[in-house]
Amino acid sequence: MRDIQSEQDDRNIEIDRVGVKDLSYPISLSDKTHGQQHTIAIVNMSVSLPHHFRGTHMSRFIEVLNRNRRELDIHRLGTILKEMKDVLEAESAHMELEFPYFIEKEAPVSKAQSLMEYKCRFVGSMTDKPHISLGVKVPVLTLCPCSKEISVHGAHNQRGVIDVLVRFKGQLWIEDIIDMVEDCASAKVYSLLKREDEKYITETAYENPTFVEDVVRNVAQRFNETDNITWYRVEVVSFESIHHHNAYAVVSSDD
Amino acid sequence: MRDIQSEQDDRNIEIDRVGVKDLSYPISLSDKTHGQQHTIAIVNMSVSLPHHFRGTHMSRFIEVLNRNRRELDIHRLGTILKEMKDVLEAESAHMELEFPYFIEKEAPVSKAQSLMEYKCRFVGSMTDKPHISLGVKVPVLTLCPCSKEISVHGAHNQRGVIDVLVRFKGQLWIEDIIDMVEDCASAKVYSLLKREDEKYITETAYENPTFVEDVVRNVAQRFNETDNITWYRVEVVSFESIHHHNAYAVVSSDD
Amino acid sequence: MRDIQSEQDDRNIEIDRVGVKDLSYPISLSDKTHGQQHTIAIVNMSVSLPHHFRGTHMSRFIEVLNRNRRELDIHRLGTILKEMKDVLEAESAHMELEFPYFIEKEAPVSKAQSLMEYKCRFVGSMTDKPHISLGVKVPVLTLCPCSKEISVHGAHNQRGVIDVLVRFKGQLWIEDIIDMVEDCASAKVYSLLKREDEKYITETAYENPTFVEDVVRNVAQRFNETDNITWYRVEVVSFESIHHHNAYAVVSSDD
Amino acid sequence: MRDIQSEQDDRNIEIDRVGVKDLSYPISLSDKTHGQQHTIAIVNMSVSLPHHFRGTHMSRFIEVLNRNRRELDIHRLGTILKEMKDVLEAESAHMELEFPYFIEKEAPVSKAQSLMEYKCRFVGSMTDKPHISLGVKVPVLTLCPCSKEISVHGAHNQRGVIDVLVRFKGQLWIEDIIDMVEDCASAKVYSLLKREDEKYITETAYENPTFVEDVVRNVAQRFNETDNITWYRVEVVSFESIHHHNAYAVVSSDD
Repeated sequence: MRDIQSEQDDRNIEIDRVGVKDLSYPISLSDKTHGQQHTIAIVNMSVSLPHHFRGTHMSRFIEVLNRNRRELDIHRLGTILKEMKDVLEAESAHMELEFPYFIEKEAPVSKAQSLMEYKCRFVGSMTDKPHISLGVKVPVLTLCPCSKEISVHGAHNQRGVIDVLVRFKGQLWIEDIIDMVEDCASAKVYSLLKREDEKYITETAYENPTFVEDVVRNVAQRFNETDNITWYRVEVVSFESIHHHNAYAVVSSDD
Repeated sequence: MRDIQSEQDDRNIEIDRVGVKDLSYPISLSDKTHGQQHTIAIVNMSVSLPHHFRGTHMSRFIEVLNRNRRELDIHRLGTILKEMKDVLEAESAHMELEFPYFIEKEAPVSKAQSLMEYKCRFVGSMTDKPHISLGVKVPVLTLCPCSKEISVHGAHNQRGVIDVLVRFKGQLWIEDIIDMVEDCASAKVYSLLKREDEKYITETAYENPTFVEDVVRNVAQRFNETDNITWYRVEVVSFESIHHHNAYAVVSSDD
Repeated sequence: MRDIQSEQDDRNIEIDRVGVKDLSYPISLSDKTHGQQHTIAIVNMSVSLPHHFRGTHMSRFIEVLNRNRRELDIHRLGTILKEMKDVLEAESAHMELEFPYFIEKEAPVSKAQSLMEYKCRFVGSMTDKPHISLGVKVPVLTLCPCSKEISVHGAHNQRGVIDVLVRFKGQLWIEDIIDMVEDCASAKVYSLLKREDEKYITETAYENPTFVEDVVRNVAQRFNETDNITWYRVEVVSFESIHHHNAYAVVSSDD
Repeated sequence: MRDIQSEQDDRNIEIDRVGVKDLSYPISLSDKTHGQQHTIAIVNMSVSLPHHFRGTHMSRFIEVLNRNRRELDIHRLGTILKEMKDVLEAESAHMELEFPYFIEKEAPVSKAQSLMEYKCRFVGSMTDKPHISLGVKVPVLTLCPCSKEISVHGAHNQRGVIDVLVRFKGQLWIEDIIDMVEDCASAKVYSLLKREDEKYITETAYENPTFVEDVVRNVAQRFNETDNITWYRVEVVSFESIHHHNAYAVVSSDD
């Protein structure tokens, strides 16, 4: 059969990225506490394409993913990117995986156990050497300092999400990121809370009011003090309870 | 050209609904205050298909919609369903439109004006005579009675949505539904609030704690007392600020 | 602490369903081929609430789910619903789980192996005895019979989804449903295809043109002939390649 | 009342962007053919915040939007960004609007008229002077050259989307972008097609097979030849009919 993809192209335009997108695939990765965690990732994989080739070979992405899915840790991403470059004969490769990750959490007073979901992502690019980022979305509670200050009692509060993306040296677990940022808002959130926990969280939040501006700054300060984080971007979104729209703030470190 | 759709089918299976789905189309409808409102609907249109025909004629749905889009009020839905039945030679027709609808709202203290979005829907079915329902999603604030009761100060609160679907006799405006249900939770929400408004809403919510159970009951009670509402379904979802999941409650009237 | 939820309510309105919604939780279930499959479900759990109680106890839903998550098969759903009724002292209970399920598929010619995702759901309700349904979304290829008939060469084709919900007696695996419905459209779809497979699928689809009307009828016919399926609803959506909207068809068996 | 937002902050961290997000608001903009078009935008507005201020004033974003919503053309975005900088006393301002835009299209043979939706976006940033981009998503049909080449008859095809973002000098209408890119894939798509149009599109697509690689290159070539386009990014996604995942390609011009 004729291999059209390998034929010559004379439009003289190099393609930055070509590949597969929105592929749902089961993967396994290391878990700081339990050894291994099974999850399901939405995967994008792509390579650059020189101007003289007409097309890439899409099926090879799936083969690379299938071969590596049982140990798809962030530390293996470099090896996978290298493999993509090799089998697709490309100068650069790019891969993104977004997946839910679960951590067993203990309620603050009752110590009741349950699992809490954090949406995470790995983002990797490689031309000569791999550049890898780790992303984690941490749900939190934000309580408005202005509302507390001006009101006779109460203060509006709401669910928010701290979305961080970091580059780092050495080892950095998803669990480490969560530990660093989860107490940067007004209170932590949980899947399972008994009444004594609900009291604790309500009061904790009231004593720690935070604007989205405060939350991004608290996280940035924490990351600035963490030696092995070499770059970060922090976005906080707060689903304001008094509005039908959201508040947000973004801080990035210098590149 | 051969008309395959009109050919005979011998599988002897009548099709409940066949048609077009997820079509985005600009429409105009009557507005209680300003005469007319332009919006954009996601439209589903379908008809039943007798067992002996192989297919329907999809392009005719678009033609019907295009002819009626400039006056697409809930009171015209019966006429449109009749037109669908006629041009598609069908025993029954069905149509759903979901669209954002905007109302000019005044902040409670400052009287500052802004526009607030309510997602609405029309649902119509017709075999012999049309059956039409009106749906409205009303964002509100819910403040937890339990959290208020057990905590020294504060109470967790959050955005919620009251989603109602009603059948009615006579005239019933989207604006009427919103007026009836918007004060059934702890406080109303707005697009634009100055500080004096934020104080007012924070305090109002604290004085009116509501579980999702309270909100659905408040709405049901209001609808039970409204003569021209002949049937309803009310669902309340509350985006709990202390959790990463939601609370909900549903009440329907008897059919 | 005062237990507000257990207090009396005098609005005299019984609540159909109250509970938790959109909770993401890891579960394990039986797999026809490999014994067990780990996946992640979006879970809704609710109970009815008599008119004289003010509220339900939301944390108990999470406790029931947490206790049962490691063996969350469709055959255990009755037991879980019973447990929900007991711990929440309710007359009826309701539970829905939606989750991705993966099956190892072999490409039709090359026999290359890969995993393919099917979104599935369990829906259970119980007052006296449990009523359980199994839902599966099966991606397929549909090729338009009209376009093939009227065109000199080619025919427009596209991805579609067959969404079935069935009630059944005895044992029925997700794998069985997929086997029954996957060849009811123009061709099957796969995650990994080599060129010889692509040729095979292109030609198979061209030789088996199907309208959405044909696909729902093919599935309905297959289910009518299957003794242990006691009720079904089939919806087919086709993401028409010549339009920016979709075509769809729905058939239900009599209740 | 105390103005907490204006108080001092000593964490010494400047915030890149703080503001409102996901606000749905009705806007009006110029239409090349009909003078004016009403639509509904999802709006993000933000400003930078110097390290010494604790918070921004969120309500002012809504006031700026409300004042400008009736003439929200891309050419006014600079003025609005300037207004945001002024009322929020900020060094830089940023605004994004995403909205559906409708164009009346004529079917290729029957000349039947209907409206077709294109999702568009304006993206603007301003420190000293405004930098504005225009984004348009154009649905198209892609037909696989490889599938056509290797198969006895037929070729798999599917809906795709060309997503372009451009910077430009002078005047550039949404309609101009659509005209430039809509014929860069295998065929155009429409809301309303009669049978003679379906034949035309099916045959046109079969005669013009395109990989996603071809489509991005065709668009890039067209933009390279257009003098007043000073920068572009083109992404093509194809919802492959033989898979449950998508193919994509991206090309950007040099900055």
